Amino acid sequence: MVLQDSKFMAEAIKEAKKSLKEGGIPIGAVLVKDGTIVGKGHNRLIQNDSTILHGEMDCIENAGRLKGTDYQKCTLYTTLSPCTMCSGTILLYNIFRVVIGENTTLIGPEKILEGNGVEVTVMHVVECRELLEKFIEDNKETWEAELEKVGFSTD
Amino acid sequence: MVLQDSKFMAEAIKEAKKSLKEGGIPIGAVLVKDGTIVGKGHNRLIQNDSTILHGEMDCIENAGRLKGTDYQKCTLYTTLSPCTMCSGTILLYNIFRVVIGENTTLIGPEKILEGNGVEVTVMHVVECRELLEKFIEDNKETWEAELEKVGFSTD
Repeated sequence: MVLQDSKFMAEAIKEAKKSLKEGGIPIGAVLVKDGTIVGKGHNRLIQNDSTILHGEMDCIENAGRLKGTDYQKCTLYTTLSPCTMCSGTILLYNIFRVVIGENTTLIGPEKILEGNGVEVTVMHVVECRELLEKFIEDNKETWEAELEKVGFSTD
Repeated sequence: MVLQDSKFMAEAIKEAKKSLKEGGIPIGAVLVKDGTIVGKGHNRLIQNDSTILHGEMDCIENAGRLKGTDYQKCTLYTTLSPCTMCSGTILLYNIFRVVIGENTTLIGPEKILEGNGVEVTVMHVVECRELLEKFIEDNKETWEAELEKVGFSTD
């Protein structure tokens, strides 16, 4: 399981790096069913001028419309702890497990996921945190504008 | 307020009817700030082969990227009670009020919205329910497949 998790988290990190290359926020995700990647995605807020395409949302959208019995076998790998929107989507589709790269930069309602029966694993991957921290350092105003949109203040 | 609510709910119903014309599920939404519609949208699961474009999500996406202080002044009008995904999005952006056309066909986590400070009004609009009920009657298999995706069984 640990080896598998590292392999799929590496794919989520690749997605985060794709976003960075496009001028976007480096957060990525992959959806895995029965050991196979069925969807990949990354944060597209900046590059697509989107309000809803977080990495997890883009990934779930790109996976296409699966059956409910398939979602229930899926693990979502994401480089950052899922926010309230993405957590709501995980719960809507009854995704059974979520593997999180890091939850230091921002943390979503992980306890609510767990309380609803989702298996949550936090891997504490240094690369996930460093990628995002570097982006924040290089794009302070952009990042603060993002936080303002969701009611966070850095003051 | 009641007159205003009826006016904006009528716009959400127009969106639901647009979806129906496109062969989609008749659920619509509008986002209103300071008495002005800033976004409109409708369910696009079927017509766009989407997993995430519920009426509310499409509406919030179409409103574009507002400031946080703007979202906090917004009311979301939706013909059907928002699901877990849409409720998570409402909470993420701190949308201050949600007006629901009907919550008989399906009901989302309205109590969780309220518990997080969102003002929730259910209008019990017969037209919202009849539009969706007629769609379900005419598209039984499609509707059951939709419910299966989110783990609901009609058995």
